[in-house]
Amino acid sequence: MKQNYLNNVPIEEALSLYLGAVKDAVGDRKTEPVKTNEAFGRVLAKAVYAVICSPHYNASAMDGIAVKSADTVSAAENEPLFLPDGSFKVVDTGDAIPDEYDAVIMVEDITEKDGGVLIYSSAHPWQNIRQIGEDICMGDMLASSFTVLTPQLCGALLAGGVTEVECIRKPIFGIIPTGDEIVSPTSNPKKGEIIEFNSVIFSGMLGEIGADSKTYDIVPDKKELLTDAISQAAEECDAVLVLAGSSAGRDDYTSEIIDSLGGVLVHGIAAKPGKPAVLGLIGKVPVIGLPGYPVSGIVVMNEIVKLVADYLSGKTTPPDTAITAKAARSIVSSLKYKEFVRVTVGKNENGFFAQPLPRAAGVITSFTKADGILEVPQNSEGYEIGEQVSVRLLRPKEDIENALIVTGSHDPLIDEIAELLKRSETPVRLCSSHVGSMGAVTAVRTHTAHLGGIHLLDTENGIYNESYIKKYFPQGGVKLVKGVGRIQGLMVKKGNPLNIKSFKDIRSYRYVNRQKGSGTRILCDFLVKKYGLDENRIEGFATEEFTHTAVAAQIANGNADCGLGIYSAAGMYDLDFIEICVEEYDFLIDEKAYETDCVQAFLKVLRSEEFRKRLSEMGGYRMGMNSCPDEKVKL
Amino acid sequence: MKQNYLNNVPIEEALSLYLGAVKDAVGDRKTEPVKTNEAFGRVLAKAVYAVICSPHYNASAMDGIAVKSADTVSAAENEPLFLPDGSFKVVDTGDAIPDEYDAVIMVEDITEKDGGVLIYSSAHPWQNIRQIGEDICMGDMLASSFTVLTPQLCGALLAGGVTEVECIRKPIFGIIPTGDEIVSPTSNPKKGEIIEFNSVIFSGMLGEIGADSKTYDIVPDKKELLTDAISQAAEECDAVLVLAGSSAGRDDYTSEIIDSLGGVLVHGIAAKPGKPAVLGLIGKVPVIGLPGYPVSGIVVMNEIVKLVADYLSGKTTPPDTAITAKAARSIVSSLKYKEFVRVTVGKNENGFFAQPLPRAAGVITSFTKADGILEVPQNSEGYEIGEQVSVRLLRPKEDIENALIVTGSHDPLIDEIAELLKRSETPVRLCSSHVGSMGAVTAVRTHTAHLGGIHLLDTENGIYNESYIKKYFPQGGVKLVKGVGRIQGLMVKKGNPLNIKSFKDIRSYRYVNRQKGSGTRILCDFLVKKYGLDENRIEGFATEEFTHTAVAAQIANGNADCGLGIYSAAGMYDLDFIEICVEEYDFLIDEKAYETDCVQAFLKVLRSEEFRKRLSEMGGYRMGMNSCPDEKVKL
Repeated sequence: MKQNYLNNVPIEEALSLYLGAVKDAVGDRKTEPVKTNEAFGRVLAKAVYAVICSPHYNASAMDGIAVKSADTVSAAENEPLFLPDGSFKVVDTGDAIPDEYDAVIMVEDITEKDGGVLIYSSAHPWQNIRQIGEDICMGDMLASSFTVLTPQLCGALLAGGVTEVECIRKPIFGIIPTGDEIVSPTSNPKKGEIIEFNSVIFSGMLGEIGADSKTYDIVPDKKELLTDAISQAAEECDAVLVLAGSSAGRDDYTSEIIDSLGGVLVHGIAAKPGKPAVLGLIGKVPVIGLPGYPVSGIVVMNEIVKLVADYLSGKTTPPDTAITAKAARSIVSSLKYKEFVRVTVGKNENGFFAQPLPRAAGVITSFTKADGILEVPQNSEGYEIGEQVSVRLLRPKEDIENALIVTGSHDPLIDEIAELLKRSETPVRLCSSHVGSMGAVTAVRTHTAHLGGIHLLDTENGIYNESYIKKYFPQGGVKLVKGVGRIQGLMVKKGNPLNIKSFKDIRSYRYVNRQKGSGTRILCDFLVKKYGLDENRIEGFATEEFTHTAVAAQIANGNADCGLGIYSAAGMYDLDFIEICVEEYDFLIDEKAYETDCVQAFLKVLRSEEFRKRLSEMGGYRMGMNSCPDEKVKL
Repeated sequence: MKQNYLNNVPIEEALSLYLGAVKDAVGDRKTEPVKTNEAFGRVLAKAVYAVICSPHYNASAMDGIAVKSADTVSAAENEPLFLPDGSFKVVDTGDAIPDEYDAVIMVEDITEKDGGVLIYSSAHPWQNIRQIGEDICMGDMLASSFTVLTPQLCGALLAGGVTEVECIRKPIFGIIPTGDEIVSPTSNPKKGEIIEFNSVIFSGMLGEIGADSKTYDIVPDKKELLTDAISQAAEECDAVLVLAGSSAGRDDYTSEIIDSLGGVLVHGIAAKPGKPAVLGLIGKVPVIGLPGYPVSGIVVMNEIVKLVADYLSGKTTPPDTAITAKAARSIVSSLKYKEFVRVTVGKNENGFFAQPLPRAAGVITSFTKADGILEVPQNSEGYEIGEQVSVRLLRPKEDIENALIVTGSHDPLIDEIAELLKRSETPVRLCSSHVGSMGAVTAVRTHTAHLGGIHLLDTENGIYNESYIKKYFPQGGVKLVKGVGRIQGLMVKKGNPLNIKSFKDIRSYRYVNRQKGSGTRILCDFLVKKYGLDENRIEGFATEEFTHTAVAAQIANGNADCGLGIYSAAGMYDLDFIEICVEEYDFLIDEKAYETDCVQAFLKVLRSEEFRKRLSEMGGYRMGMNSCPDEKVKL
């Protein structure tokens, strides 16, 4: 086998090279007989022909009487014909027609009379009879090779007397998680322990495309143990995935071991994420080393493993549904790789628009939040804002078109509204991005969100939100709906061991900040100015987090001593909370979207008793201000 | 419960009435805890929040050394800084960063030196560190209620420390097949026995939408037995389907029994097929009587049962993908019903076109061949040819766009070509309709087929096909590709008990004919004329079948004594065959489609050794004429 130790093989080239080698090595796929009534979703290994006709006898299509059509010619409406008992036979739908009869008269069209029946019109030959073979004739090909068996097709095969079919055996993928620091899923991991969930994702993905999987025990980073595990799996399975862990050292092990047991065709593909993939073969068995970061692994699963699994299953890989969208932000990419950017997709009056999600390979939630994948070709530097892009969808287009897009300031109450919307009479999917209050202004101005939460303090007069709307929406086109009064404060370690008393104390401790453009950052900057602090001398002032919970997590973990945020986040992390002020967290709504069903459903939830109850459980909100949110239309 | 004994309830009204009653009766759905790593495809019963952060500690994002960023400020390319052992720590990707350090320098950016390392630039705080909560923060809502769990989401939940989730219990549908004449699937049924395959179709369909099913033994048509079976199933399951069999009497039983045990809300919906459905409730359990004809049953499954199953599963029913197509034939419908017409869909330069399939409720193959469902509203008389119609697709749009459409004369060799195309290097799906040779002429003229088989005898000169092309394609636009020499003959019972010798003998026996417009019918009419027979005096001359196998089946079953057809059909049914002539079975190809990949793939198979071999196995073809099919371009 030719070895191609390449470090940055273009992905199409890697795929074509590898798939060709797999096809050559695998040869004929294994087949097995499967009972037709259990064969849903299976793939036919060869064409199937009917062994009986359906119906397999002349059957009555109606309840009525079977007659000889020749006997009935004289019958007429005004001159009914009497058929004596014995010259016809009562039949129900589905009953066999005796050979001597060739027509059925419906029960509605006869009247009984002593010793026989009266009929009112002649019967033509074969009327109301399902003739033998009406649906299926013996010998007819019912399905060709590689057809995926639907329930309906299984029914048709049974109708044609086919009780067993030869199917391609489902390929079994061995999955080997590796790494010293890897542990099985737990809700209580120690520091340095990495929860192994990639095998769960990959076995689920294989199940979705109709392949089976067998997950082996976690193998530590010992060459001999890895070699044993890989050769055992290659003997027991039709394909093997080695979950390489994230260390570069270990990647080399995987590649080296596969090469020693068989051959490596590609090591390193020009995909981002996904680069360190290893594509090899041990005998007839494809063996693939997957990168350890989940997002990288999923990309290699989608772009390469899925096609190998489909080949082994006898399936043609269906193309993904793609749409054309406008880039809602610019997307910069390296010329070195083909990049797979996870995006959310929304729709406005100009069509679809795509927003990139966080691109770090470790961020699995970028895949759970994503509506689609935007591919940036290897030779492209990316896309400008507004440029046309093609997006492969990860969920039905209808789900995307009907989602409520909420872009703006982060608050856990947005998630609670999402939950209540899902539970409402006519459920709505809320799709949220946390980009801060100024992000909401931009998104609503560009019609890339229906609405967004804002809490923008006018540092001149201490009034929230109003002046920003005057400034950024001088032509109107937007509504401001009162949201909640929300307590902002300093989060500090439980028991406040450093005895922090007010905002100005932050100059002496390690602070964790929010990103520029967030309402909380504007409040922070206002307070820094008010107390005459020098931000360059505040340790950690440059460290920016995007959510209240992320700030709380840094403090809880000891990365920082204090940070500005909301009460509910402090509560979640068991932190103390020093009240600073009550701010007005309101909703900016695109006027064009205001009357839509999804925005109206949002407002209904916002005003609901259930939502008030939830807020009071979370704590940190001033309910009085939210007792009856009234709308103010801004010019 | 209010009973609505209505016989023709509009389907939308029936659905809304019934679904409302089901929701009221069922109330809260049952839930159960499910291990996250086994929860693929399950539906969340409530919102899920992260119980730990991910990462749950500050982790190195690279292989390298962990340092205090403050120690590194003086390092520069031209003035490297020496860090002595003990002032840093070697870390691999994923390792925990000890509390005293706040940055990682990549291994590529350091050089080792006795007792320490040299670094060439300063490290900024938190560089190359995945900070706690980078992906997920404890307390974040990871998914809201009624979310369907994908493998990726299960991975994200495990990353957030969620090892178990509360899911909606999968509903179990009891399926009760009923009927005296119903038998389990067999390849050797007796006359009058109906193979029970509906339960297989319905349990498969329920599986596809994520519901479980339990199929009970077949219950004979006895009221007490049916009552016992239905009440047992209503106790054991979350919903019950009673497969009513096809008799009107039995339908009444089902309705009567459901009503006596609970209540019937609707009996009879204005749907064709599907009319005799019974929609009822026994306590909290929806009980539905399905019509016995498979096609009717599938329509009721799609239009009603699916929505009930989705409700019980906590899912929102996704809308079907719909396309707009042109009606390729006129479609007549009754004002009385909403009609669900199964159609094949093709695409030409003017867009999609839809061809109706056989509409009988017993023809299950109409569902296996269908590309989509065309709904004719209840108040509509149907559609004219060429009218715009909306079609709900049953397979991916891409499969439809790439299919090879073959419309014309029936020959089993078309199915064999379909099989070889599926097995070829770049598989093509061949979609065939058997509408006779003249049907091919029409389809190719209207660009609703890529090609079609023809064997059209010019009764004036005995030459095949050429004169028809001159007549019907005076402007050209079509190619004729030589196909095969095919032996036509009379099929008669094995051993030829009636001693039929030549075509003219048919005047004395029961004949079975082919449909008008088929090449075989033209040959028949030519022979009738040649031998001076009176067609009105030939018994069965008016009985028309659409395929050779259907003709053979009638003879094998004794419905007729003889019929014109091809050798392979006679062979399948173990009939004797009296040769009449060799005809030229050629292919008419739309010139516009000739260069397309799918037509070229077809021609490649037609000329292949494998196809020649298959023909010779089937018998009845003259190979000489097909040794190297040459093309004749017709003007």
